Amino acid sequence: MLEPLTPAPRTACVITVGDELLRGEIADTNGTEASRRLTAHGIATRSRHTVADDRQDISDAVGHGLGQAWLVLVIGGLGPTSDDVTRYAVGHALGLDMEDREEAWDAVCRRLVDLRIDVHPDNRRQARFPVGSVLLPNAHGTAWGATVTVGGRHVVLLPGPPKECLPMLDAALAGVGARPAATADPRWRTMGLPEPEVAARVDAVLKATPGARATAGYCWRYPYVDVTLHGGAERSDTAAALTELVGEALAGHVVGRDGRSAGERLADRVTSARGDSAAGAPVRLTIEDSLSHGRFQQWYEGLAAEAAEAAETPEADGSPAGIHVAATGTWHTGSPTDHRGSVAMTCRVTVDGTTHTYRLDEPNLGPEVLDGAAEFIAWSVLRALDAEPASGA
Amino acid sequence: MLEPLTPAPRTACVITVGDELLRGEIADTNGTEASRRLTAHGIATRSRHTVADDRQDISDAVGHGLGQAWLVLVIGGLGPTSDDVTRYAVGHALGLDMEDREEAWDAVCRRLVDLRIDVHPDNRRQARFPVGSVLLPNAHGTAWGATVTVGGRHVVLLPGPPKECLPMLDAALAGVGARPAATADPRWRTMGLPEPEVAARVDAVLKATPGARATAGYCWRYPYVDVTLHGGAERSDTAAALTELVGEALAGHVVGRDGRSAGERLADRVTSARGDSAAGAPVRLTIEDSLSHGRFQQWYEGLAAEAAEAAETPEADGSPAGIHVAATGTWHTGSPTDHRGSVAMTCRVTVDGTTHTYRLDEPNLGPEVLDGAAEFIAWSVLRALDAEPASGA
Repeated sequence: MLEPLTPAPRTACVITVGDELLRGEIADTNGTEASRRLTAHGIATRSRHTVADDRQDISDAVGHGLGQAWLVLVIGGLGPTSDDVTRYAVGHALGLDMEDREEAWDAVCRRLVDLRIDVHPDNRRQARFPVGSVLLPNAHGTAWGATVTVGGRHVVLLPGPPKECLPMLDAALAGVGARPAATADPRWRTMGLPEPEVAARVDAVLKATPGARATAGYCWRYPYVDVTLHGGAERSDTAAALTELVGEALAGHVVGRDGRSAGERLADRVTSARGDSAAGAPVRLTIEDSLSHGRFQQWYEGLAAEAAEAAETPEADGSPAGIHVAATGTWHTGSPTDHRGSVAMTCRVTVDGTTHTYRLDEPNLGPEVLDGAAEFIAWSVLRALDAEPASGA
Repeated sequence: MLEPLTPAPRTACVITVGDELLRGEIADTNGTEASRRLTAHGIATRSRHTVADDRQDISDAVGHGLGQAWLVLVIGGLGPTSDDVTRYAVGHALGLDMEDREEAWDAVCRRLVDLRIDVHPDNRRQARFPVGSVLLPNAHGTAWGATVTVGGRHVVLLPGPPKECLPMLDAALAGVGARPAATADPRWRTMGLPEPEVAARVDAVLKATPGARATAGYCWRYPYVDVTLHGGAERSDTAAALTELVGEALAGHVVGRDGRSAGERLADRVTSARGDSAAGAPVRLTIEDSLSHGRFQQWYEGLAAEAAEAAETPEADGSPAGIHVAATGTWHTGSPTDHRGSVAMTCRVTVDGTTHTYRLDEPNLGPEVLDGAAEFIAWSVLRALDAEPASGA
């Protein structure tokens, strides 16, 4: 009764090229950012591959990528030096000859003359592309990119410097007809349940929903366990039903739905005083915090001071007044320094005379348990602010 | 006449597992750090691969890795949830059955009981390993790792959280007999030559040296072009000769040999006042800086203030006195904001009454030209400090 509406989504492989990446000298920030932008365009990254400045290795990776994805993105190795071999490797992988492209050569020369750099014969490489390439101009350097389309699949070549390749990536995605995705996979950020318990609850929902095609991903990022449903391509009524059922299974433990932490969400509420948000007046708290050993209090007070400084009307009328936060913890083995046992956390938030009480038992994993406690306090404040006036305990 | 002394070095493939990596939600810091540590152990990373929480994808990547490297490192997917499938994928790739390992199960239970977390039936997964695995205890979590050795090649499984996997990686490397490398590939950080010119000079040296097996890697990291010779396994006399010839070819443009920038090296000299260095007394400068628009001056003064605060004897006698730095620039198209033309940089450094003058022409690439100018000034100061007293101009 629940059928998929759309075919399998478009997929990509991302290949980043560079010995310096493989020696661990620099982080592959391009690979991460490319995946993020592909995700935002509704294109799932099937795999990422980092290879050396080696013609055979790049060519093999491109061949492998073409075997599994609709779009193969190759970043790096388009410079003017002898170890810049990406263009030839892609030509080889696709069985295409190389050709000189005068428009790219003109652009290389123009840019170098502009910058009073001598044109070097080796810059000629940067005007050579597999036959039939659609070129991608580079507004910030000499290394133009290209899109090569074979059998309905696309190989996109981009240079390595992030300032150059990332704007070109957006142009390349538009060029192959990819558009920013309208909807994202449903997700939940939870607190207070062990990861296997979260997974067991969500897995049970998926199993009990006939025809559901979504799979669940779990990611533990202390103090949170994140859940994402993906790959579903469900009908919208199925998606809505699944989302509701998963929400029920996790009830009482969902901190948010947008991947932000409680601290980040509370910070947004506080800084709404800057006037760019409809979230209302700034939130001012008085805090007694023996739970996170003052960590929450210190963080919050710094944030509030910054917000007041940035606000045009630092003493704005109408801000919620009299919000009091009292957080305490009972350490089952005595302290946050012995990394054993658990801590029973309690946070009482009084808003407009009503006190809301929240409790959580957290394992005492190590020093970061105090960060977890600060997040729990932030979450408690958010819940109290959003609670109905009469729902307090 | 120049022959290789050692066989091809040990190689590795690094596989990181996780849908959240492929969506670009978190950076693959483990992959970078693993490559860095492998490099430090003299093990060259042939490739890195990031794959989904998918049994077939992980298994394919492991098979591919075993085809090209001595060590395959798989990070992530050892948790207790249904999407943690790395252990099974590795067993499948190696054709090995799975077995329950009581020592791992005991450790999982002990840790959970310790933290007052209920033991969940799904935690059982975390005690299951390919038959014959050598287990790697996890001091910071329930996910033990393993090394599986087949036909002289090793597959190492590690959990995803960095605090857990990185200490285990060091143990795994020791377990397969890898030791920190004694020597690193020779490298040069250059300034003031375009990348193709740097490459052409070094390529010419390699071509003219009979029997040299090293290959050169070039990496442009504005304002620097880095050169590394690698994969050589030369005899030590060949290596020494090659290193000398490359140094000669780049003479006058080498900022350093250790990958640090001029700013980083100067900062080390300044903070030697902290007493942990043999580099001498702190360096105190008076600065006139119209070249980097005050950027160098501001950076340096902050650094010097910090160093003085940290020093036990902030007014130590014997520090070089009377060092004066005057840096100016002539913008060929007027300013650093129009990203065209070039800037002729001049830096005069007076030490003990002798003035050293350094000049550099840099393309005006964009706002970062001011950072480049600050690096040029730092390099000029370093050169003047290291110059023979009589060598000034």
